Amino acid sequence: MRAGSAAKRLLVGRPLDSGRLGETLLPKRVALPIFCSDPLSSVAYATEEILLILALGGLAVLHLAWYAAVGIVILLLVVVASYRQTCYAYPGGGGAYVVSAENLGQTAALTAASALLIDYVMTVAVSVVSGVAAITSAVPSLDGHAVLLSVVFVAVLAWMNLRGVRESGRWFAVPTYAFIAVIYLMFAVAAVRMATGATIRAESADLPVEAVSTYSGIALVLLALRAFASGCTALTGVEAVSNGVPAFARPKSRNAAMTLAIMGGLSVTMFFGITVLAMVYEVHVAEDPTELGLAPGTPMSTALAQIGRATFGDWHILFYVLQAVTAGVLILAANTAFNGFPMLASVLGRDRYAPRQLFHRGDRLVYSNGIVLLALAAIVLIVAFDAELTRLIQLYIIGVFVSFTLSQAGMVKHWRRELATPAGAADRHSIHRRLAINAFGACLTAVVLVIVLITKFTHGAWLVVIAMPVLFAGMKGVRRHYDAVAAEVAVGPGERPRVLAGNHVLVLVASVNAPSLRALSYAKALRGTSLTAVTVAEDPAQVELLRATWEAHGIDVPLRVLSSPYRSIVQPVLRHVREAPERTGNSVISVVIPEYVVGHWWEQPLHNQSALRLKTRLLFMKNVVVIDVPYRLASARELAAERARAAEAARAAEAAKSAEDRT
Amino acid sequence: MRAGSAAKRLLVGRPLDSGRLGETLLPKRVALPIFCSDPLSSVAYATEEILLILALGGLAVLHLAWYAAVGIVILLLVVVASYRQTCYAYPGGGGAYVVSAENLGQTAALTAASALLIDYVMTVAVSVVSGVAAITSAVPSLDGHAVLLSVVFVAVLAWMNLRGVRESGRWFAVPTYAFIAVIYLMFAVAAVRMATGATIRAESADLPVEAVSTYSGIALVLLALRAFASGCTALTGVEAVSNGVPAFARPKSRNAAMTLAIMGGLSVTMFFGITVLAMVYEVHVAEDPTELGLAPGTPMSTALAQIGRATFGDWHILFYVLQAVTAGVLILAANTAFNGFPMLASVLGRDRYAPRQLFHRGDRLVYSNGIVLLALAAIVLIVAFDAELTRLIQLYIIGVFVSFTLSQAGMVKHWRRELATPAGAADRHSIHRRLAINAFGACLTAVVLVIVLITKFTHGAWLVVIAMPVLFAGMKGVRRHYDAVAAEVAVGPGERPRVLAGNHVLVLVASVNAPSLRALSYAKALRGTSLTAVTVAEDPAQVELLRATWEAHGIDVPLRVLSSPYRSIVQPVLRHVREAPERTGNSVISVVIPEYVVGHWWEQPLHNQSALRLKTRLLFMKNVVVIDVPYRLASARELAAERARAAEAARAAEAAKSAEDRT
Repeated sequence: MRAGSAAKRLLVGRPLDSGRLGETLLPKRVALPIFCSDPLSSVAYATEEILLILALGGLAVLHLAWYAAVGIVILLLVVVASYRQTCYAYPGGGGAYVVSAENLGQTAALTAASALLIDYVMTVAVSVVSGVAAITSAVPSLDGHAVLLSVVFVAVLAWMNLRGVRESGRWFAVPTYAFIAVIYLMFAVAAVRMATGATIRAESADLPVEAVSTYSGIALVLLALRAFASGCTALTGVEAVSNGVPAFARPKSRNAAMTLAIMGGLSVTMFFGITVLAMVYEVHVAEDPTELGLAPGTPMSTALAQIGRATFGDWHILFYVLQAVTAGVLILAANTAFNGFPMLASVLGRDRYAPRQLFHRGDRLVYSNGIVLLALAAIVLIVAFDAELTRLIQLYIIGVFVSFTLSQAGMVKHWRRELATPAGAADRHSIHRRLAINAFGACLTAVVLVIVLITKFTHGAWLVVIAMPVLFAGMKGVRRHYDAVAAEVAVGPGERPRVLAGNHVLVLVASVNAPSLRALSYAKALRGTSLTAVTVAEDPAQVELLRATWEAHGIDVPLRVLSSPYRSIVQPVLRHVREAPERTGNSVISVVIPEYVVGHWWEQPLHNQSALRLKTRLLFMKNVVVIDVPYRLASARELAAERARAAEAARAAEAAKSAEDRT
Repeated sequence: MRAGSAAKRLLVGRPLDSGRLGETLLPKRVALPIFCSDPLSSVAYATEEILLILALGGLAVLHLAWYAAVGIVILLLVVVASYRQTCYAYPGGGGAYVVSAENLGQTAALTAASALLIDYVMTVAVSVVSGVAAITSAVPSLDGHAVLLSVVFVAVLAWMNLRGVRESGRWFAVPTYAFIAVIYLMFAVAAVRMATGATIRAESADLPVEAVSTYSGIALVLLALRAFASGCTALTGVEAVSNGVPAFARPKSRNAAMTLAIMGGLSVTMFFGITVLAMVYEVHVAEDPTELGLAPGTPMSTALAQIGRATFGDWHILFYVLQAVTAGVLILAANTAFNGFPMLASVLGRDRYAPRQLFHRGDRLVYSNGIVLLALAAIVLIVAFDAELTRLIQLYIIGVFVSFTLSQAGMVKHWRRELATPAGAADRHSIHRRLAINAFGACLTAVVLVIVLITKFTHGAWLVVIAMPVLFAGMKGVRRHYDAVAAEVAVGPGERPRVLAGNHVLVLVASVNAPSLRALSYAKALRGTSLTAVTVAEDPAQVELLRATWEAHGIDVPLRVLSSPYRSIVQPVLRHVREAPERTGNSVISVVIPEYVVGHWWEQPLHNQSALRLKTRLLFMKNVVVIDVPYRLASARELAAERARAAEAARAAEAAKSAEDRT
């Protein structure tokens, strides 16, 4: 405990005052990297995912990537436009859960929540794994350690987030802006080189792409749709901005909508630019090196790494910079989820769909429980899927489009309700426009959801289709439990504490020592209706000794000896209490137990084991209250003194800080 | 808990009365299989271990097995004779720990205890693994599942032992006697066949034995000694009888010594007979099939399986019977340890070298904690060593000979002390004889210990040489802790419970509901010096609501609101209590917390999380006592009712049983 507490302070810093929450509001330049690193970074792999699917149809169908890319660009613009409306309508934060809850009811809200929870976990897993892929593309010798690297990065992210939102923002700005800069630099270099007559080709341009099977007719359409669905990873994380509106600097809604627009512009240009270069350079990729005519197990570079290597050519340093910032932004993209997941979990905790402790803030202004939970879930996924991006990505898109569709459908309902209230003509015109945008967005994302479901179901997405209802049912169950408990403990108006007829006190003793005497002191101070000391006869000699000492010390409490036919300490006490006639409807029995308090974790199993088992059983008996009277051993007193000193130091530091603030 | 308790009853049966302990005393015919299955069964692999070592030197040195076997027979006879003396000298049980403690002091006793604890674990691991090898020799298709099979057998053994000594004895008699019968039948068949002119050769007789390197001079002597040391596994478990004297039927010592003699006779004849047949049949074994000129990975039969197959020839059924009873007796040999380990752990617990809970009997007359601990340790070893007998056996012999040597040295001291007391001439003569036997035994086993240490150290025994001091230091540490605590809590003569100046009661509330009202009722019944209700202001609206309800219900307890700058529930309460002026040297603060008691394990994380964290922190504060006032929710009341019914039924059954016993 001692080490734990000190380590926590060292790792996550001093607790922040509630009054300082205002300080952590984010200007746009800080909010962009925090909330948009996910959609921005997904351009690093979206193009590749399209090409990987089309490669199944061989070289002849690769040109379909153009159609998929254009479709995704349109979709992205529509979704961004649609979510900008949410920023204005919900300045308090308009995640899919909140919007669905307010407009579409409980079932839709919980569906959205299930989808979002899964997606946050997937965002962490997919972003980190693909960041690690960028690293192994540049340093092939790390290829075998992808799982370990990924897990370490998730742990580091969790740690940064436990330190709080503001500090992490500052750090996270660097790789995001560097990534944007390097991508545009790459575009510029490519444009200049090609304008001056250079022919740039990818390292894989000459590799054959062998079709796994021949696609034509419906099958070809389905393949193209599957490629489109895979490319839709570019859209993940758009939700984060509308969800995080309250964290923006004032004017919150305007700044958030503006940030969303900037993000949309950057995403569309980067994604389309990368796709253009991939097609022009003739980048060939495949899930298995043998499909490209390579030996099994040949390490392969990502599409973006191939484009970078081809563009920068001899300027190796720029290629390595590209890979470094790509890895950086991808790993930090997971941060979007570390912001979103705990906030959603906290809202669910507030609405009693999740354990209450997810609602309470830790002492660093962040929802520590949610952060830890998210990191653990992502680590489990990464380990289970062996850090393989192509397998993980199959689970990714469904949740995103479920929440898109529900959120925008909810917005349609919202605007229709606004229209029902009397308002000026200008306003009505504006509302009609917003309604149209959201309605179009909802329809489009619903269609994409159907496409994703059809094309990805058998490739792993069925797992999500199972997981979502399970989460849904779990949250409903938690709520049902809390509701039942609330109904059970509710009291009628004017009901007062009952007056008890008696409090019969039993003190458990094994010998006459300081903890027993302390327990007896306390038991006397309870001034109960009766007071008896109770001991278990494990060994007749021991009982005789106890009786003699009891008399020698002149203790004026009657001592009752319980026989122990089964040589257990717990059973005789349980039976004695269970059969006590004093335990009537209006009297209680207080069982006082001396407890040894130790300061080291390893001392714990050496003490109080019988007391612990006794307590868990007595808890279930009617009209029984167990009182541990702690006796702190030397090691515990040291720990207590250390804690008191730490508390004193924290208070002094705080006082000094406030004095400083005042001057 | 409900399921756990019901399952425990179902698995281990009704608790036994202390008075019935006498019933479980064992006649010789039952004691032999219980205490001797280990030394009897080890003849199944001792010969093979000798041949495996000699195979390293090639065909030319295999004849050295004769010398090793003769040495082991002599050693076994001396050790049995020596331990028979212990049975008479220590009718209360003379394990190496007890004998060393009484005669050689604490350090020797703890050394013996460390050695014994390790050996009990090794007995379980080695016996079970080699039993599984007997099975896979007969059914080669099970070869890949040795680890799983071994773990299952250990679990089954633990379960049988948790049911109690008597029942297990009855079961364990069958395979032990069957094993002895089948081995002698095999000797008879071999004798008759060879007498009638048959030439019997093992299946491996024609395989070449390629020397790993050439041994001559000192190296050859060392190889022979190493073979001898490996064959000493035949001696493991002799200690069990002298340790278990109190479990024998009267006259205890005589019966125990007789059982030991019978065991010695059986072991010597079976071991020597098997070795003779192995030499005559020219059984060739090697750790690696390639040393016998076989393809890598070829499944190999144990030496005993080869002898059985060669002897019984076409009578396949008898070969399978041999393998079945060998597997049976080996797996049950582990039972020796399941009897010995918990008894030793209990003695160590009594002497405060181990946690006290190892000392308490469970409710089935056995030391449940020790049984579970032993099974877990053996499973860890089996999994870690991948169920490979030859690697496990390297760790086995050191502990055995450490305890042999210490135990017999202790006996020498014992007889010398007896000689110092005045006694008749006849007695003195008998004591001189006993002293001579033990002294010879001690010297011989000490020499063997040195041989084992030298020849096995680099082959894995170093692990035991590290583990023993670690266990030793651990036990010393536990004792030091208990002694320090006993000194710390000791009270002067005539010291009485102090009279407390005041008991200031705080009740933590979050809202007005049934649990809070019950906590307030109880707090009032404490009749403390002061009574205050305390709440934490997480949310101003909630506090306002609480104040209003408080007044509406007319609760006559003052309500104090603590501000929560860090949005934590725990910290403000801690600070309030820490800074309370009432917490003076002679007054206490009682913190009353309403606790929700639930009946299902999955409801647990939904409640009381803040209370739990608060309690663990308050435990360390001076003059503070925490009182949980339980409010049992419906699910907890159901569980309680079920338990009460079960207790009632048990009581009724017991009453019926006693009535029956009386008639």
